[in-house]
Amino acid sequence: MENIGHGGKEIVERVLPKDAALKRLNELKAAKAKVLDVRLQIATEVIDIAYGFFSPLEGFMTKADVEGVCNNMTLADGKTVWSIPIVFDISDDELKKSGIKQYDEILLTYTGNPFAIFDVTDIFTLDKKEIAMKVYGTTEDKHPGVKRTYQYQDKFLGGKITLINPPKINEPFTRFWLTPKQMREKFKEKGWEMIINHQTRNVPHTGHEWLMKGAYLGAYGSMMVDKPRGGILVNAIIGSKRDGDYIDEAIILCQEAQGKYGYFREDTFLTTCSLWDMRYAGPREAVFHACLRTNLGCTHHMFGRDHAGVGSYYDPYDAHRIFNTLPKGSLNITPIFNLDWWFCPVCDEVTYMGLCGHKDKKASFSGTMIRSIIQDGVKPPRRIFRPEVFDLIMECAEKYGFGDAFVTEDYLKRRNPVFTIEPL
Amino acid sequence: MENIGHGGKEIVERVLPKDAALKRLNELKAAKAKVLDVRLQIATEVIDIAYGFFSPLEGFMTKADVEGVCNNMTLADGKTVWSIPIVFDISDDELKKSGIKQYDEILLTYTGNPFAIFDVTDIFTLDKKEIAMKVYGTTEDKHPGVKRTYQYQDKFLGGKITLINPPKINEPFTRFWLTPKQMREKFKEKGWEMIINHQTRNVPHTGHEWLMKGAYLGAYGSMMVDKPRGGILVNAIIGSKRDGDYIDEAIILCQEAQGKYGYFREDTFLTTCSLWDMRYAGPREAVFHACLRTNLGCTHHMFGRDHAGVGSYYDPYDAHRIFNTLPKGSLNITPIFNLDWWFCPVCDEVTYMGLCGHKDKKASFSGTMIRSIIQDGVKPPRRIFRPEVFDLIMECAEKYGFGDAFVTEDYLKRRNPVFTIEPL
Repeated sequence: MENIGHGGKEIVERVLPKDAALKRLNELKAAKAKVLDVRLQIATEVIDIAYGFFSPLEGFMTKADVEGVCNNMTLADGKTVWSIPIVFDISDDELKKSGIKQYDEILLTYTGNPFAIFDVTDIFTLDKKEIAMKVYGTTEDKHPGVKRTYQYQDKFLGGKITLINPPKINEPFTRFWLTPKQMREKFKEKGWEMIINHQTRNVPHTGHEWLMKGAYLGAYGSMMVDKPRGGILVNAIIGSKRDGDYIDEAIILCQEAQGKYGYFREDTFLTTCSLWDMRYAGPREAVFHACLRTNLGCTHHMFGRDHAGVGSYYDPYDAHRIFNTLPKGSLNITPIFNLDWWFCPVCDEVTYMGLCGHKDKKASFSGTMIRSIIQDGVKPPRRIFRPEVFDLIMECAEKYGFGDAFVTEDYLKRRNPVFTIEPL
Repeated sequence: MENIGHGGKEIVERVLPKDAALKRLNELKAAKAKVLDVRLQIATEVIDIAYGFFSPLEGFMTKADVEGVCNNMTLADGKTVWSIPIVFDISDDELKKSGIKQYDEILLTYTGNPFAIFDVTDIFTLDKKEIAMKVYGTTEDKHPGVKRTYQYQDKFLGGKITLINPPKINEPFTRFWLTPKQMREKFKEKGWEMIINHQTRNVPHTGHEWLMKGAYLGAYGSMMVDKPRGGILVNAIIGSKRDGDYIDEAIILCQEAQGKYGYFREDTFLTTCSLWDMRYAGPREAVFHACLRTNLGCTHHMFGRDHAGVGSYYDPYDAHRIFNTLPKGSLNITPIFNLDWWFCPVCDEVTYMGLCGHKDKKASFSGTMIRSIIQDGVKPPRRIFRPEVFDLIMECAEKYGFGDAFVTEDYLKRRNPVFTIEPL
């Protein structure tokens, strides 16, 4: 049971050991297999598929899968919940030029190095506007997920992926990147029976800290006295950045610092990252996150206010309500729905919307407020922001952000990539 | 289903309406029924039995019940969990003098006024030392529960109780005293599906507040966005006092103040009281509290550190562990086990033993610390003690405590009784 992932199936792991990989590479070369060099998003998703982050997906979606996802929020089988299309796009020109046909086995390269084998079983087109409407609830290209959909090329290839050349994860991310099977090993090692996932793309303030603490209390209502029965997994999403996002290095190191400096007991806290380009699909992205974290071995997933939303496309609690629409038993993970945590000047502490009676006096943790604290560089009260986390942001800005804790064009150009594919 | 109490049976309510009561009283008088005037503890327990606080008990225990409680922690049926003997004691002399025999129907009076009918079906003796050992785990009479056991007279009467003259609950307790059926009505009115009981004999500091907040988060892991699904019932135990206890009036009014002044949302918070002389039986008292609050209609019951213990007779978490020894399904209430909450100077807030990594720096909320704060009369920081609660303690000390917030001999002599039995 322990390696069962989303959809009730064994966690996918389609990664060849070095010897077998070299042999297959030589066979492909001998057979003059067609070669496609892929961009960062596709390389990221190849890795996710191959290690089972996207279990039970074994490859990029076929047209039937995409249609199932759009129309029923399931894969083509009509049963397995899936909310976001995972597709491999290719331009008409490139498709013609490469001569790829159905049932071709093609070699994928990334930054020119051999990377994965792609068994193309479906070649198809999609109605992007329809996808946008069904997945994101809007066709406006101001929505970053819609924009990404419109930017796909016009043809799509579906089929299974086999990784032949594992990524090298670069510093400071190395120790935070665990595959689904490695995460499960880690949880076993720690003796955790329950694992609550916290999704983040943020440097944590005390509002986030209490969101996690509240969810922990929620899941462990009946915590044993003598040992922690489980813990919190902070699983940071590392992927494409938007202007003004925190730099990835600050996110992951500052999340870890919460355990390191005792704001969480180290035996109840773990920080890791997963590679994913946020789609900001709000409720549908929440469902996707639930599937992803099922594959990591989590038993619970917290969903706060405006989970994975953007602008005002979704109601702040749509991402809670969508779980009521899913058939019972279709997810192997328990959602924990958190309302807002805010700073209450009467209680003189961070407190919970479901409990605090001073709503009219609350001070919300707005992104803008926190950003201005960081940009001013003046250390805020420790009840708002942990001083060790604050110092670490400044250090990360210096060391990784070219002087800035937030994403700039300069950072995007000059940063060290999160992973590289070396020659095989 | 809604009026099902502990043991899976309809809530007991053995209270005659006025007309029927007068009729029965006249019948008893005509039949020259024997009359016993009872002391406060017995009067309290008559009320508890008659209104179903002790469901499924319909009267004072027979010898078979007491033996079941001591040996198997069940009633005589061998199935219904019960942990504390509920007995009616009488001296040899009084028994002889009154001439009470098995199957007599006797009239109980309190402060001389007709009060209840007692169908005596069993007259027996008990081994008090054995009871002490089995219920309290000690035979030392420094233990207040043991002392109470040893103070019982030498004979015991068992049989059903019928209340013929309801108590008048005096101020300021009137609005806080609801019978089990009335509590259930109240919860329905509030639309609460889940009710978490907080047991208290204390004026609340922020450690207690967070104990409740944590338990709330524990029970409502999946709280609905649009309305509270339930709330916290503070059910204060009002009964015999020990030197240095808070005065009852301060306890109940200060508990209520937490909602009144917004430290809890009023729609998620309710304060009531129940009448009971604490036995300080630690784990066995925890089980008793679980049964009592099942009868009040609660779905959850929080158990913190050293629940209902005294001195060092029990391990601080024995009251958690005992629940693992009960057969599955023997309780209709879910225990929520809370570890310690303390003030952490690094986190700069009240924080949880299961989460905070600064254990070596913690400042515990000791009774002594809080007592000295109150005795000094200097308002503490609002993160430790709510100023409105502090002011109210001072007010209660003046109004009800003869200048003291804690129980004194003077208070015990001069206080207004919690309830009175008026002439019928």
